[in-house]
Amino acid sequence: MSDTVKYLLDETRIPKFWYNIAADLPSPPPPVLHPGTMQPVGPADLAPLFPMALIEQEVSTEREIMIPGPVRDIYRQWRPSPLFRARRLEKALDTPARIYYKYEGVSPAGSHKPNTAVAQAFYNREAGIKRIATETGAGQWGSSLAFAGALFGIEVDVYMVRVSYDQKPYRRALMETYGARCVASPSTETHAGRAILEKNPRHPGSLGIAISEAVEIAASRDDTNYALGSVLNHVLLHQTVIGQEAIAQFDMANDYPDVIVGCTGGGSNFAGIAFPFLGAQLRGGKKVRFVAVEPAACPSLTRGKYAYDFGDTAHLTPLTKMHTLGSTFTPPGFHAGGLRYHGMAPLVSHIKELGLIEAVAYHQIQCFEAGVQFARAEGILPAPEANHAVRGAIDEALKCKREGVSRSILFNLCGHGHFDMQAYIDYFGGKLTDQTYDESELAMALAGLPSVKAA
Amino acid sequence: MSDTVKYLLDETRIPKFWYNIAADLPSPPPPVLHPGTMQPVGPADLAPLFPMALIEQEVSTEREIMIPGPVRDIYRQWRPSPLFRARRLEKALDTPARIYYKYEGVSPAGSHKPNTAVAQAFYNREAGIKRIATETGAGQWGSSLAFAGALFGIEVDVYMVRVSYDQKPYRRALMETYGARCVASPSTETHAGRAILEKNPRHPGSLGIAISEAVEIAASRDDTNYALGSVLNHVLLHQTVIGQEAIAQFDMANDYPDVIVGCTGGGSNFAGIAFPFLGAQLRGGKKVRFVAVEPAACPSLTRGKYAYDFGDTAHLTPLTKMHTLGSTFTPPGFHAGGLRYHGMAPLVSHIKELGLIEAVAYHQIQCFEAGVQFARAEGILPAPEANHAVRGAIDEALKCKREGVSRSILFNLCGHGHFDMQAYIDYFGGKLTDQTYDESELAMALAGLPSVKAA
Repeated sequence: MSDTVKYLLDETRIPKFWYNIAADLPSPPPPVLHPGTMQPVGPADLAPLFPMALIEQEVSTEREIMIPGPVRDIYRQWRPSPLFRARRLEKALDTPARIYYKYEGVSPAGSHKPNTAVAQAFYNREAGIKRIATETGAGQWGSSLAFAGALFGIEVDVYMVRVSYDQKPYRRALMETYGARCVASPSTETHAGRAILEKNPRHPGSLGIAISEAVEIAASRDDTNYALGSVLNHVLLHQTVIGQEAIAQFDMANDYPDVIVGCTGGGSNFAGIAFPFLGAQLRGGKKVRFVAVEPAACPSLTRGKYAYDFGDTAHLTPLTKMHTLGSTFTPPGFHAGGLRYHGMAPLVSHIKELGLIEAVAYHQIQCFEAGVQFARAEGILPAPEANHAVRGAIDEALKCKREGVSRSILFNLCGHGHFDMQAYIDYFGGKLTDQTYDESELAMALAGLPSVKAA
Repeated sequence: MSDTVKYLLDETRIPKFWYNIAADLPSPPPPVLHPGTMQPVGPADLAPLFPMALIEQEVSTEREIMIPGPVRDIYRQWRPSPLFRARRLEKALDTPARIYYKYEGVSPAGSHKPNTAVAQAFYNREAGIKRIATETGAGQWGSSLAFAGALFGIEVDVYMVRVSYDQKPYRRALMETYGARCVASPSTETHAGRAILEKNPRHPGSLGIAISEAVEIAASRDDTNYALGSVLNHVLLHQTVIGQEAIAQFDMANDYPDVIVGCTGGGSNFAGIAFPFLGAQLRGGKKVRFVAVEPAACPSLTRGKYAYDFGDTAHLTPLTKMHTLGSTFTPPGFHAGGLRYHGMAPLVSHIKELGLIEAVAYHQIQCFEAGVQFARAEGILPAPEANHAVRGAIDEALKCKREGVSRSILFNLCGHGHFDMQAYIDYFGGKLTDQTYDESELAMALAGLPSVKAA
């Protein structure tokens, strides 16, 4: 019996289309509302921020959206990404479960984020855009857009949450190596940033604030657009290459997942692996359990309210109906910075409301335990965000062991942790704590949700 | 025309044999000498340090040495590694050259080192060994052996050069995540270490000292062996999977290299890519130019003496004939820690003496310039060591441009730089200097070479 089982597709098998789950949902998600009028937004409202091709994808109900040749060509550098059977981990757990993981850390930037960064940079270049402003927390998104910008000759300005900017100089250096400009947020470059700094010159920043800054810059300059690394429909759409490849790889393995696990911050890597399987199920295919794993310190799906809310702190973005902790909620500073967002992708929220997926929340120490166990068995060191998916998958495998049944478990290993080693040092040094939020702060943030009449 | 050209072999094409260049050399390299008797060493002399299977490989003249099934099985996690045509870099350089790179950073530990670490851990486990002691500089080798040890259930003790131990906590954390024990060298755990610390309690350490410590530990414990990450014949042998795959990939590309470039510290990644092509040439195949690129601050091939010398500082190792700067030579603290070794692999030294390869030395700033240019074009961030190969390849491509000829250039991108970001920060911050050694110190180190009568 072999220890290494890798399912590798040749590059002709890179998907030719992105899969749009909107075509298969039993009901459409609620409309996105304009923050001024509270009426559904139209393409013109979004035009200052995004190229029209992406706006069209945002509202499309076509099942398949063709991947442009130049995007697919760049995907070929690392796609199709490998699907592994984690036999060494199965042995370590002594479980009858069949554990598979799709590994997105093979991309140059080290995560699934380039799947959409490359697409977004391409459409922006086609639209004649010279510069893209964006935000980043832990830095996976910022470095992916920096990479994509370098390929298409687009300047990239990254507003990086100040606490991460200070704590993660190496992630910043990666963005700068790709040629991007990285600014600590809140910054003095925007009204939104200056207003916050006036009240607190040492504000640690948040994703919501960094989004406000990037949106403000993009809205005020003709040659500059905005790009978001998760949450929006078109971002989730681009990630569906992951699940489509996984379906073909499970064909090779002569197997099919019983459970699919992904971590959720904004929702894009989870959607990327889950939606193609969920679409097949909605069209009459095999039923799969989908488990979204989120941080217990920022639990939008398990503790948030399904309501209309802003995507940012300064309330410059449209309102979307989603599971939210409130745009004023500040999650504690745990290490999976990519999961520290108050809201959840509207599409993921909608399918959660439809009862099509489950959600579970874990504290960080148990996630790092899982990540270290995985690294010792499989050799790959996961990002702190990905450790949540590893924890979820291991717990499903241990349940199989207790029940004495062999189920097929697939999880998305969305990125490596090479730029997150301080988190592992803290873990080994016993300095990691299971932070939690203040219940009264959450209650206040939820009470402050914008009041929206039924649209 | 496509931007991404990737030559990917399926896993049935992982080499079944390691290629042993000793079978094809016009003359054998000089014998290895016992440090006490100055007579050629026999297998029994090496038995306290290495399992017999590796000792046999060290002296074998068989052309093909079978790769054991369990080793090949683990290779399958990341091998065959991809060969890329660097079209985006070619465009950026506006060169008629055809630039190819073999990318070894796809291994879990991020470099070519697992090719031999996995083999060495396997043979040690077969021999019943419970623990392996080794040294590491920048940490690529230490983390690779830590990874391999985790797979085979072998404890790994890594003596890490103190200056790197202090400067690179993240690399250390990676080794610890794999379960290895990492000790700053010189340490109080060995006679060699204590002797040095008595003279200088704040000694920054060196590879030569760390080797002395690991060898001492291995020689004094029955259940513990030693492992070296470069220099020795069997280590170079294991790396030949790189070049063998590249030959098959050039077949796919309908091309053949005119020039092959690799960086050289101990010589193993260079040998890995070069020897299979050189062997083909020695057996009547096409002539290739082989260019070894070394750091100007530690230039064993270009400034060293071809002479018998010790591999370590405390003179516990056998004597090998090699290009050496003298075992007392302390190279300045430049960033490519993996290239800071006073000697060169005896096999690489021998073929250099035979006139089969060229060598060139570069200072580090021009290497980082090349690395950043490469990262912006190809998206992959090279290790500081690999930047030397990138520089060499770019210079060959620029020569093609000046001469108006299209040559095929292959280089080995031996690892990524995710754990070396401080070097990039220093580069961008203008803090990098082109350090050089003291000529009188080099002269003294060379004058102190052991006197060895013709064996």
